[in-house]
Amino acid sequence: MAPSREAVRATVENYVKAIATGTVDDVLALYAEGATVEDPVGTPVRTTEAEIREFYGMVEPLTQTGGVVTLKIAQNNAAFLFRLVTHLGDQDLVMEVIDVMTFDDDAKITSMRAFWSEEDMQSTPAGE
Amino acid sequence: MAPSREAVRATVENYVKAIATGTVDDVLALYAEGATVEDPVGTPVRTTEAEIREFYGMVEPLTQTGGVVTLKIAQNNAAFLFRLVTHLGDQDLVMEVIDVMTFDDDAKITSMRAFWSEEDMQSTPAGE
Repeated sequence: MAPSREAVRATVENYVKAIATGTVDDVLALYAEGATVEDPVGTPVRTTEAEIREFYGMVEPLTQTGGVVTLKIAQNNAAFLFRLVTHLGDQDLVMEVIDVMTFDDDAKITSMRAFWSEEDMQSTPAGE
Repeated sequence: MAPSREAVRATVENYVKAIATGTVDDVLALYAEGATVEDPVGTPVRTTEAEIREFYGMVEPLTQTGGVVTLKIAQNNAAFLFRLVTHLGDQDLVMEVIDVMTFDDDAKITSMRAFWSEEDMQSTPAGE
C-alpha cells in the first residue's frame, strides 16, 4: 500500500530540514534499508549505507538554511523543488534543486535522485 | 555524448509550448523512436507511438496556455516544473506538474514521467 500523502510530505519536509540543519543521523533515519542515492543524476549511484553516510557527512558541518518550494506527489513517488542556502562568511551559496524520491509503505525513502548542475548554484552577498 | 544544455532547454520549452498550443504531431516530433510516457507516475507506461499519440490527442483540442517555471538539467536528464492553464469558458483549470525526461544525443525525448495528482489541479474564475 502506498504511504499517505501526509506521510510523504512529512518525510520530504523533514529531509530538507535535516540536510540544512540536522545531522547525518537525522538524514539517515529518513532512509529505508537498501536505499540508493544518485546526486547529481548521471553520477555513480550510492548503494551502501557507508556511501550514503559519507555523502551527507560532507554537508553536515555547513551552516545552511533551506526549504521545500514545490512538492508533487504521485502515489509512492515524489518530485520536489527545494532551495538550500549555505552561509559562507560574507557570501551565501544559493542552490535550487529538483529531487525525485520513492518511498516504502512507511514513507521511508527508498531512492533519491537529484537533478541539478553547477548552473543551479549562485553565490550572492550574505543576507540578500 | 550528452546533448548540450541549450538543446535540452529548447526541447523542454518546445514541449510545453506544443502541449499547450500545438498539435499532437508537434509533440510527437520532440520524441525519439521507442520513447516511453508515464503520466502520472504510477500509472501504466505508454510504450508505443499509437499509445503516446492517443494520450496527447486528449489534450490537443483544449484551449491552453503554459510555460516552464523551473528547469534543472543533469547531463542527458532534466526535471522541470511547468504550469498549464486550460481555459474552460468562465473557468480556468490551473495545473502545475514536475516532469522528468531523458534525452538522446539529438535532445529528442526518450522518456517522460509526470509527477502530479488531483491536488495539483485547481479551478479558478477565468483570467485570475
